[in-house]
Amino acid sequence: MTRPDGRQADEMRPVEFVLDVAPHATASVLASFGQTRVICAATIQEEVPRWMKFQGVSGGWLTAEYSMLPYSTHSRKDRDSSRGKVDGRSTEIQRLIGRSLRAVVDLKKLGPRTLWIDCDVLQADGGTRTASITGAGIAAAVACNRLLEAGKLTQQPLRENVAAVSVGIVKGSGLLDLCYEEDAAAEVDCNLVMTASGQFIEIQSSGEEATFSRPQLETMLQLGEAGIRHLSHLQQQVIAAAMKPADSSGIQSLAEFFKK
Amino acid sequence: MTRPDGRQADEMRPVEFVLDVAPHATASVLASFGQTRVICAATIQEEVPRWMKFQGVSGGWLTAEYSMLPYSTHSRKDRDSSRGKVDGRSTEIQRLIGRSLRAVVDLKKLGPRTLWIDCDVLQADGGTRTASITGAGIAAAVACNRLLEAGKLTQQPLRENVAAVSVGIVKGSGLLDLCYEEDAAAEVDCNLVMTASGQFIEIQSSGEEATFSRPQLETMLQLGEAGIRHLSHLQQQVIAAAMKPADSSGIQSLAEFFKK
Amino acid sequence: MTRPDGRQADEMRPVEFVLDVAPHATASVLASFGQTRVICAATIQEEVPRWMKFQGVSGGWLTAEYSMLPYSTHSRKDRDSSRGKVDGRSTEIQRLIGRSLRAVVDLKKLGPRTLWIDCDVLQADGGTRTASITGAGIAAAVACNRLLEAGKLTQQPLRENVAAVSVGIVKGSGLLDLCYEEDAAAEVDCNLVMTASGQFIEIQSSGEEATFSRPQLETMLQLGEAGIRHLSHLQQQVIAAAMKPADSSGIQSLAEFFKK
Amino acid sequence: MTRPDGRQADEMRPVEFVLDVAPHATASVLASFGQTRVICAATIQEEVPRWMKFQGVSGGWLTAEYSMLPYSTHSRKDRDSSRGKVDGRSTEIQRLIGRSLRAVVDLKKLGPRTLWIDCDVLQADGGTRTASITGAGIAAAVACNRLLEAGKLTQQPLRENVAAVSVGIVKGSGLLDLCYEEDAAAEVDCNLVMTASGQFIEIQSSGEEATFSRPQLETMLQLGEAGIRHLSHLQQQVIAAAMKPADSSGIQSLAEFFKK
Amino acid sequence: MTRPDGRQADEMRPVEFVLDVAPHATASVLASFGQTRVICAATIQEEVPRWMKFQGVSGGWLTAEYSMLPYSTHSRKDRDSSRGKVDGRSTEIQRLIGRSLRAVVDLKKLGPRTLWIDCDVLQADGGTRTASITGAGIAAAVACNRLLEAGKLTQQPLRENVAAVSVGIVKGSGLLDLCYEEDAAAEVDCNLVMTASGQFIEIQSSGEEATFSRPQLETMLQLGEAGIRHLSHLQQQVIAAAMKPADSSGIQSLAEFFKK
Amino acid sequence: MTRPDGRQADEMRPVEFVLDVAPHATASVLASFGQTRVICAATIQEEVPRWMKFQGVSGGWLTAEYSMLPYSTHSRKDRDSSRGKVDGRSTEIQRLIGRSLRAVVDLKKLGPRTLWIDCDVLQADGGTRTASITGAGIAAAVACNRLLEAGKLTQQPLRENVAAVSVGIVKGSGLLDLCYEEDAAAEVDCNLVMTASGQFIEIQSSGEEATFSRPQLETMLQLGEAGIRHLSHLQQQVIAAAMKPADSSGIQSLAEFFKK
Repeated sequence: MTRPDGRQADEMRPVEFVLDVAPHATASVLASFGQTRVICAATIQEEVPRWMKFQGVSGGWLTAEYSMLPYSTHSRKDRDSSRGKVDGRSTEIQRLIGRSLRAVVDLKKLGPRTLWIDCDVLQADGGTRTASITGAGIAAAVACNRLLEAGKLTQQPLRENVAAVSVGIVKGSGLLDLCYEEDAAAEVDCNLVMTASGQFIEIQSSGEEATFSRPQLETMLQLGEAGIRHLSHLQQQVIAAAMKPADSSGIQSLAEFFKK
Repeated sequence: MTRPDGRQADEMRPVEFVLDVAPHATASVLASFGQTRVICAATIQEEVPRWMKFQGVSGGWLTAEYSMLPYSTHSRKDRDSSRGKVDGRSTEIQRLIGRSLRAVVDLKKLGPRTLWIDCDVLQADGGTRTASITGAGIAAAVACNRLLEAGKLTQQPLRENVAAVSVGIVKGSGLLDLCYEEDAAAEVDCNLVMTASGQFIEIQSSGEEATFSRPQLETMLQLGEAGIRHLSHLQQQVIAAAMKPADSSGIQSLAEFFKK
Repeated sequence: MTRPDGRQADEMRPVEFVLDVAPHATASVLASFGQTRVICAATIQEEVPRWMKFQGVSGGWLTAEYSMLPYSTHSRKDRDSSRGKVDGRSTEIQRLIGRSLRAVVDLKKLGPRTLWIDCDVLQADGGTRTASITGAGIAAAVACNRLLEAGKLTQQPLRENVAAVSVGIVKGSGLLDLCYEEDAAAEVDCNLVMTASGQFIEIQSSGEEATFSRPQLETMLQLGEAGIRHLSHLQQQVIAAAMKPADSSGIQSLAEFFKK
Repeated sequence: MTRPDGRQADEMRPVEFVLDVAPHATASVLASFGQTRVICAATIQEEVPRWMKFQGVSGGWLTAEYSMLPYSTHSRKDRDSSRGKVDGRSTEIQRLIGRSLRAVVDLKKLGPRTLWIDCDVLQADGGTRTASITGAGIAAAVACNRLLEAGKLTQQPLRENVAAVSVGIVKGSGLLDLCYEEDAAAEVDCNLVMTASGQFIEIQSSGEEATFSRPQLETMLQLGEAGIRHLSHLQQQVIAAAMKPADSSGIQSLAEFFKK
Repeated sequence: MTRPDGRQADEMRPVEFVLDVAPHATASVLASFGQTRVICAATIQEEVPRWMKFQGVSGGWLTAEYSMLPYSTHSRKDRDSSRGKVDGRSTEIQRLIGRSLRAVVDLKKLGPRTLWIDCDVLQADGGTRTASITGAGIAAAVACNRLLEAGKLTQQPLRENVAAVSVGIVKGSGLLDLCYEEDAAAEVDCNLVMTASGQFIEIQSSGEEATFSRPQLETMLQLGEAGIRHLSHLQQQVIAAAMKPADSSGIQSLAEFFKK
Repeated sequence: MTRPDGRQADEMRPVEFVLDVAPHATASVLASFGQTRVICAATIQEEVPRWMKFQGVSGGWLTAEYSMLPYSTHSRKDRDSSRGKVDGRSTEIQRLIGRSLRAVVDLKKLGPRTLWIDCDVLQADGGTRTASITGAGIAAAVACNRLLEAGKLTQQPLRENVAAVSVGIVKGSGLLDLCYEEDAAAEVDCNLVMTASGQFIEIQSSGEEATFSRPQLETMLQLGEAGIRHLSHLQQQVIAAAMKPADSSGIQSLAEFFKK
């Protein structure tokens, strides 16, 4: 089957990361999976949530918030603050982002701090949750490195990097990294969150008005594992380059990204 | 490894269903997976949501709401209405219940109606979402049968039955149908929603502070598939019996259930 | 005048109580007044509300919450949590339940604890607030007895039992314990909350679009007092039996109740 | 027993009404029971609530809102709008005001209109709900008369006047029209809403931490009936005078009231 | 151009202040600019907001709340508490009132207290925010004087008096103190907040669907400055008289005001 | 006096605009005033607000929303959606942005459409509201031009361009375009909104804990007028260039901007 942008079934969209688009965050990145663009920020806060103090839990906390900017969608989306509450889908996604990051962060080593992960979608074209997790993985890694370098942390809290990718079944075929048009047509939608070493953190596979078989699951898992390997490789490059400000030639800048 | 209640790793807790505990619903069932008890009700409403009218979508709708009664947990849980909003976990669960049921219901055949699925947890001991889906599957099936019998529906909207079960990895071993104590200790928590014919509707597998491998996923899927076959068999008995009020000797009554 | 279910004017519907339907509560009871069924739970919490700490009030607190489950009414009722607030009628009823119980509980003897009373209507057929108070009276009494037996309390906080019943004027005649059909047709609706010894705790008598005379009030009070005597007698039996688990032959079980 | 202000047990505080303090309302009155002062306004709106249109109910509607201005109490009271919701006590009172007025208004004769009753407490010294109902009774009557005079209504919707008064048991004795100090000390608090012809509309009698007997109820009813007769007499004078603007010598003006 | 009430372009409406209409406030005043009437109350509270404690800021705080009573407008205005939030316009006005008063109050001299300013509009006919600030200026001054006299404060926190007035451009001409009819027709609407000594505290000049020139601004500023001088003079009289209760002949009483 | 970044008192920070950073909007721009960066988007929606339909107002509407992204400030700012409401400052700013744009847009010529203006602050360093209005002015202009070109509009609704700038008095001296450090230290803060032709749309000048004189106002107005001329000139270049996609050499791209 032919994909709208001519990709192969197992081919990801162009993936790019631009660092430090929001300089007041501890670390931030504009993550792009094709036309999907998400601002991912990691911000350290020198206190823990009230429930931790109350329950006497030691160590730190990591929590995530996800939001679509109103102009990120084809028809303008009302703000959560106008509607007075976060919608169900956003709640679900921000819980997933939080769980995914907590699976690779040792909260004890954070000390009595909160690491806030914020993901704001600037442009939505499918896969906003996987781009969010992948970008948040970079932001969290760079933030931890900077806090170590600044002596605020004494031990690396991040065990390994985390990335996420979507896979799906469209007209019976497995596809990697669905764009919006494919996502809307998919019989099955699957999101994989994995570590750089190839372990699973989360699998969410669902058919809104359809079902799927064990072989279809197997196809999706294989496509997804290959996608994760590709993303992990890109992440490692960006994270490494972020720590060498003097020689940042290896990092793709926002300027170069938008020039294309 | 030994389980708290002496079960085998691949053994489910006693599962029981008591019909029509809330007689004003179209159909209702008290579903028990061991000490976990959920009131599941299916109620037909002769109108569709505003967004369907607005967008001109034909057919009907199915939506689910999930709530834990305040006395269902060991420490009393504040009501959502007191806190002014549904918490993130409940939002996530009710979206899952809704998607799971919509996967087996042909909304066109419902006509311009909403089938409300309500799941209220009376007692929580792990697996409330899977007991909810499994009970809701029965309530929805009985409701559809009654609406057909009453001539309100002319075609069966339910394609097949749906059930759900939890599996997990505890101290490295795969276990079926986790109770609360096991759930709290689990490295990986996985919920499977499947049809009576063995197709997947949803897989949600996640490690809050851990990761898992392909072989561990395989183990969990096999345990879950066996559990689903057991549940589907029980569901079919209850659904069949519900349609024979004159000879209800086959159905286990609430009285018998509580006597034990 | 003939009543829909053939009762005499001064005759109550069948009243039944099934204990411990929600085992995580300190005590719980399913209270039925005819087709009206309410889950009443009493749960002890080892802390007092913030305002008590702030104001330095000693002793404990008792508060009540009332809710109709969405499938308890003929047309499905939206949840309070979906609408974002508790409706006016529920607010009024839960305040009444709380006041009624506080009138017979010595809060000093509770110690620095909160006794939560939760009433959730499973099926509504008139008189849900009076069934709630009467069931809550049992749940509170059994909870206090259990806390004494467990040594958590050293003095009995409950001064005496509390029960409630509705009376009304329908087509000019006084009726005891109105069902929904009668309630909807009533010119005057009156709820009496009384102690086992025949003292009043609360009288709420109102005509939404009508008025009533002193003789009509007198009629309603006499009908109500007889109803309360009947309820108090039943309550005492259930509370006594609850404390003899070895010989529970005196208590009606949920099983027997649903068998009928 | 001696009352704080030297009144007899069956003596009301000075009661005064100043008309049209809020000229944009259809009719308004500042009602004073001693130091308790409430602004009561009746405002006609040329539409009915959405639920009436939706359910196809003909005629009009009457609804009430009650609020304490933040500076009406000894310690400043937070606004409902700051807290985001109306508190339980206010909800209960505004429902009572609405029921009380609807008992004497023929909604059919209002036509497709809403009569809004607003009661805002300027100064609170006990009995704010009874002052509100009594003042609202005047505002509603004057508003109906003005709408008839203006030809907007063709039939008088008001069947008769409505007034309310508080009675209580303090240290064992019955007292009429309790001030704040007495209200705080009362064992039993009773509010009576009655018509000018001596019929009951609503009786609410409750003991927060006490009980009461039939003879005590009888004492309270007798005290209250006398109070209502006094109030009804004053109401009739004010309502009659309101319709004779040329010769308003009979009405007490706000100026005279504040001069004292 | 002719004004609806025959005033000159530089002529204010009759301005009157009646003291202590809400006796539970530390000081209160009914401020009238023509038909616009606002209840302004200043209430001292013996604590500071949580953020001050949290941030360790010393001294006191002053905050303002503004609300239109539902019957203050020609068509009834829904309450903020019914809509669940304060509307944008009220938010803006109450922030302006707060800033205006804080500009003349030395918060350090207040000590660890909050001075609450409440402005509730009883009748709206244009200029409610300027009448609110001018009335609040009196209430705050009288409250401070009383707290000094009572020995609660040892230093005068009020540096000087504050007043406010509206000016506008209607059909090209500058007008002082616009009534509602003029305000609705104005091309430019300007509110000036100034001190008794003629310094500016705030200028807000805006054209909703129009623009204005430097000369027009100059005209408005001159009209406004004259209005402020007039208001400051009246304020000083009322504040001085408030402190001489024995000889209050200089103060206009509410009685006299309503008599006219 | 010396400014933190060495600017002259009448010198603006570097101002830059990058077009179309959010391609799903009708037009968008990243507006930077020094380190202050705001995403401004204009999005056309083919319907008008409900109140317009209800009131039968013809033509279109323009409304604005303003929000600070949580990582835009030095300490992370909680999201409005988490707190459940828009804070007072944001409400005030978004109302100002809306009024400013409506002053230059002929709503009749928009037809039955809403032009949404969204301003999301990416990085805050003082002057976020003036950068928002200036950027929104460009986004609105480009959006109108594109809608004309696409034939959706037949008449230009934009009368002229709008820009805004802040001025202030710091240690007694007038300064143009305050950065955060200056803003925090300012005695007087003034925001000017003006048209390209030099007319005023809005003047907001206020001293939170200080006052200002006529000569100081004059100084601020002169500084501001010069700033507006500079901004208007830059706006015209960007708007003109946006309509020549083939030859976009004149527009500064985001890439070039971030390269610096």
